[in-house]
Amino acid sequence: MNKTIEEMKNPKTPKAQETREKIFRTALEMFKEKGFEKVTMREIAKACNMAVGAAYYYFKTKEDIVFEFYLHTQQEHEEETQKIFKESKDVQERISKTITIKLEQFAPYRSMLSALFKIAGDPGHRLSPFSNESKKVREEAIDIFRHAIEGSNLKMRGEIRNYLPHLFWLYQMGIILFWIHDRSENQKQSLLLLKNSLKIIFQLIRLSRIPGLKKIKQSAIELLNQTKLN
Amino acid sequence: MNKTIEEMKNPKTPKAQETREKIFRTALEMFKEKGFEKVTMREIAKACNMAVGAAYYYFKTKEDIVFEFYLHTQQEHEEETQKIFKESKDVQERISKTITIKLEQFAPYRSMLSALFKIAGDPGHRLSPFSNESKKVREEAIDIFRHAIEGSNLKMRGEIRNYLPHLFWLYQMGIILFWIHDRSENQKQSLLLLKNSLKIIFQLIRLSRIPGLKKIKQSAIELLNQTKLN
Repeated sequence: MNKTIEEMKNPKTPKAQETREKIFRTALEMFKEKGFEKVTMREIAKACNMAVGAAYYYFKTKEDIVFEFYLHTQQEHEEETQKIFKESKDVQERISKTITIKLEQFAPYRSMLSALFKIAGDPGHRLSPFSNESKKVREEAIDIFRHAIEGSNLKMRGEIRNYLPHLFWLYQMGIILFWIHDRSENQKQSLLLLKNSLKIIFQLIRLSRIPGLKKIKQSAIELLNQTKLN
Repeated sequence: MNKTIEEMKNPKTPKAQETREKIFRTALEMFKEKGFEKVTMREIAKACNMAVGAAYYYFKTKEDIVFEFYLHTQQEHEEETQKIFKESKDVQERISKTITIKLEQFAPYRSMLSALFKIAGDPGHRLSPFSNESKKVREEAIDIFRHAIEGSNLKMRGEIRNYLPHLFWLYQMGIILFWIHDRSENQKQSLLLLKNSLKIIFQLIRLSRIPGLKKIKQSAIELLNQTKLN
């Protein structure tokens, strides 16, 4: 049974899928234990009882395995949040649960993410959530916040509403960054920060409906346009 | 002429001060060129035409040289901002200039700071601006914002006012983080972000005087107390 390289990279057979999954899981465990930087593809292959050449058919580099992790958790996040959005129309609850689920998803990989943060803190690094190569995952992550807002009870019109999905994604990044470094028990400080800052954000959003606050809204739009955060 | 070790560490003679300064300057140049992680104390000593043992009298580790950099720029920043505060009572101008001066001070060391950010992104790292060992420099940096507010035209009473120096320092950290990664020409995006976000911050501060906004102020105080940002 001869397989093309293409088939091995995008395995269609159950056996190949299993192998790919095995490399993925083994590598994540090793990143967690030894730190991302110290693990080599050779060691990953060895731990899977494979020749390194065989492992390369599935993942060319360690970074590709991390991308698989991004894609994988992204997909899971999408599925979980879709359930939430069906259960509640309340925008604050939707956003809060979206980010809480993300943190729960990441919890077993906290030490690995901490190591990744050190090398991917630079937006020029391909593993950075701000990099060109992360564009697809980033846009899908922003889409989750778009879905949280669409069909919700959020009463907000005008230009800023269009920026909200991106801004909430940036906000989620900030919470994740705080959470990675949070040494409180079960990272409860991060959950408090999330709860209390969301409260303020939605108080400000409600305030923004007061007609006298046009000037401040205009400043916010200028800021968003000029710094090209979108 | 016999010198005690203590005298060499805190050199009082012009010659010893000169040597300490030479190691400091040479090390910073090497960090800039080769990156902080790749330079060793041995190489720094060699570049200064010194035995490594002699260099150790002045700085025990590379990290100590970075601390010297923090202290040095901190002191300069204090002197520069004192001049600014004498010239203007306008709080927005004071804060804006305080942060602009900081960025100008850091500009020649931008690539070094970028390398440092990668290892000191973890608040547990001694070189992190959030670490226990950075406490003294951090408190002095927060004091600069305290001086910017004291004697200014800021009309704001109550609990939040006490948090402002710390919050502006955190805000400055955020701007520096953005600036480190800013690839626009002369980091002009960072200056735009500073200008526009300060505008919004002071519009919000002015808003906070409206009595009807008590609830939102209370939420902000809760957030600050619970997350122990102070």
